[in-house]
Amino acid sequence: MTINLKNFLNDKRKMSKMGEFQELKEIEGLEISSISADLYNNGRDDLALFYFKEGANYAVLNTTSSITSETINWNQKSNKKSIKALVVNTKNANTFTGKQGIESLDEIAKNVSKSLTLKESKVEEGISETVKIKDIIFASTGVIGEKFPVDKIKSSIQNLVDKLKAEHNKLLWLKVSSAIMTTDSKPKLAYEEFIFGNKTIKIAGIAKGSGMIAPNLATMLSFIFTNADVPSNLLKTLLKRASASSFNAITVDSDKSTNDMVGIFSTKKIKLGQNRNVVDPVIQKFETALKKVCLNLAKQIVVDGEGAKKFLTIKIVNAKSTLSAKKIAFSIAESPLVKTAVAGEDPNWGRVIMGIGKSGEKIESQKLTIKFGELPVAENGMISENYDEEKLKEYMKWESILIEVNLNQGSDSFECYTCDFTHDYIDINADYRN
Amino acid sequence: MTINLKNFLNDKRKMSKMGEFQELKEIEGLEISSISADLYNNGRDDLALFYFKEGANYAVLNTTSSITSETINWNQKSNKKSIKALVVNTKNANTFTGKQGIESLDEIAKNVSKSLTLKESKVEEGISETVKIKDIIFASTGVIGEKFPVDKIKSSIQNLVDKLKAEHNKLLWLKVSSAIMTTDSKPKLAYEEFIFGNKTIKIAGIAKGSGMIAPNLATMLSFIFTNADVPSNLLKTLLKRASASSFNAITVDSDKSTNDMVGIFSTKKIKLGQNRNVVDPVIQKFETALKKVCLNLAKQIVVDGEGAKKFLTIKIVNAKSTLSAKKIAFSIAESPLVKTAVAGEDPNWGRVIMGIGKSGEKIESQKLTIKFGELPVAENGMISENYDEEKLKEYMKWESILIEVNLNQGSDSFECYTCDFTHDYIDINADYRN
Repeated sequence: MTINLKNFLNDKRKMSKMGEFQELKEIEGLEISSISADLYNNGRDDLALFYFKEGANYAVLNTTSSITSETINWNQKSNKKSIKALVVNTKNANTFTGKQGIESLDEIAKNVSKSLTLKESKVEEGISETVKIKDIIFASTGVIGEKFPVDKIKSSIQNLVDKLKAEHNKLLWLKVSSAIMTTDSKPKLAYEEFIFGNKTIKIAGIAKGSGMIAPNLATMLSFIFTNADVPSNLLKTLLKRASASSFNAITVDSDKSTNDMVGIFSTKKIKLGQNRNVVDPVIQKFETALKKVCLNLAKQIVVDGEGAKKFLTIKIVNAKSTLSAKKIAFSIAESPLVKTAVAGEDPNWGRVIMGIGKSGEKIESQKLTIKFGELPVAENGMISENYDEEKLKEYMKWESILIEVNLNQGSDSFECYTCDFTHDYIDINADYRN
Repeated sequence: MTINLKNFLNDKRKMSKMGEFQELKEIEGLEISSISADLYNNGRDDLALFYFKEGANYAVLNTTSSITSETINWNQKSNKKSIKALVVNTKNANTFTGKQGIESLDEIAKNVSKSLTLKESKVEEGISETVKIKDIIFASTGVIGEKFPVDKIKSSIQNLVDKLKAEHNKLLWLKVSSAIMTTDSKPKLAYEEFIFGNKTIKIAGIAKGSGMIAPNLATMLSFIFTNADVPSNLLKTLLKRASASSFNAITVDSDKSTNDMVGIFSTKKIKLGQNRNVVDPVIQKFETALKKVCLNLAKQIVVDGEGAKKFLTIKIVNAKSTLSAKKIAFSIAESPLVKTAVAGEDPNWGRVIMGIGKSGEKIESQKLTIKFGELPVAENGMISENYDEEKLKEYMKWESILIEVNLNQGSDSFECYTCDFTHDYIDINADYRN
């Protein structure tokens, strides 16, 4: 991966601060750890634990695939309002693992419950509430159909719990966000904060995902943590809205997985007062910050798309509806012909026309305008009079390319993000399991 | 391209006869020619003419893209019942060429009309009917958005007409079918015949298409010729039915173009009698032969898919409906992750699961069975007890791979065809226009 983050993230201030990775601060009420259960047989971290000692409000969005992992199925039994622990494993997707897959989680959950309860009784005598099985949720990512490695994971739980840390500095966040990766070349982290009264509201997010990325939460895990006391149902609303223009606006290869999810967890440390709703100023501030975190993570996933050398923004404006704009945007973004042309730095805008047509959306060719960056390409149903092939070829050498289609049919718009399609994608995916 | 046709076409008899290409016989009433109008600046044939001196019944299916070429738009004005000439150019798709594109065809049609009328008046004195502009249809394929090369084509028409031959042997068919190619590595030809009374009914087809291939007549041209006198409306019905399981059952890269088509033309030489319809025995024989020609051509397009090294059949059986089976089949066939795994000879059946789930069709995991060839992979919602990784790896080395999904939900099925996704696809498409 050669894309420089600075070239595609708009917020210059943030980038200069973060260097290669944005610095995540400690979220009070959250303890984290990651270790190697040796699932990859190479000692890399592959198991992560997020522990909310005093419980967390939470909301989760799951894949829309009609086949879901046993992990996602298992989570359906969990407490819907509040949980205490999130366990994430990589290497194995726990999908098409049948009874073995679901029983494995039962066993692991028992061990997690036992170890966490034990930990609390050591620390605080007479603790009233232990960690119950239904206070635990899981996330799994990796290969589909292989036997779930229950023994390796079970025997690692005590160690995972022992390593929990409430002080999570930049390095620990990096370690844990690396533990959830599969083919990712680097971890994904994002952070926002704002002042409420004399308190700092923090939102810290991590994500993984590189291939099998498409709208509707394809092969992607993202976990977002906040100290703000937002109730679970409101978290759900805000997460859905933030995902619509971030995690659901990206595609790497149009494929989507059976078991991935995005979750938000509130440690409830900063009280916002009663009866907060989406029009409340502090919730609006929270939503703005959450959207930034989600968009930042989503873009990092695209930048780290398997084999990606270029970041591609497809912007559809003046559509007759947002849905129509979204369909056209993804029809272009998912086209292998568009993505290979971008890889070849070829301003082959005919393939953008093909992508628009393929969407099936009714458009008026005569009204259509296409620009690559600021350079005019097509106008009035034909090539622009100001078309400049040399300038376009120069533009295609950039790391970040903007393709803008103005439909002149209405006032709605949608923007989605993808990457180019290169030899490296083939290499990574031709022999992924070995 | 290294796939041996023998390995995927079922009809051994036909293959042994055809060697590398099937031999097409002469269709009485059809004259053909091809020349170079130097559209590629390298002297290759790029312009073809099919002339029906006594007219032809015909039917055409066009792309379902919401943006269509000026060529397809122009054809809308043509005689719907019978035509006399089909002119095909390559290199330029005549799409997003606006007024220039449509006026170019007006001019070229005038030249074609004049040259053909002149030819007839030379040959037969007092010929009653000349070739009118509305008796001509066009097909264009190539790059979108570039100015249509009207002058080069116009100045080549007389030469094209002069070269028309009524005796079209194997070599002439090869020459003409090569003239309509773009990125194809070889021409596509197919032929069937059967006896009706003491006459031979012949069906000869040619096709082009390599990239931008997807269901619904993506970037693909196919022209099928017969001496059987089938009326235009019945031709349309038969062509639609034959395309459903052939041209509309293939995908190379899920992209579809703005201007491609399949057409069938009857020179009316062999009378079948009045009031023929789809249940008539001779029409049923005709339909069977037509389906063979279409499927043969469709498979050749997949085999010649850009960069393809392997032919892939996705067979969905016992679905609750044909539409459901088709959605699942294409969801698997269009997955870059499935196609790269096949390229890497990796039996990564988890990606087939992903493809099924991505379709959004409701399935019952517990009932699902997956086989690669005859080898069991998944049963009862998990890996098969007879799963044999070594045998599967051996199977993946074959040139032709069958992935069969049994949904056990009903009795409908659908089979579609695709190819693997290789480095060569990237190479061909990263810099197509140069």
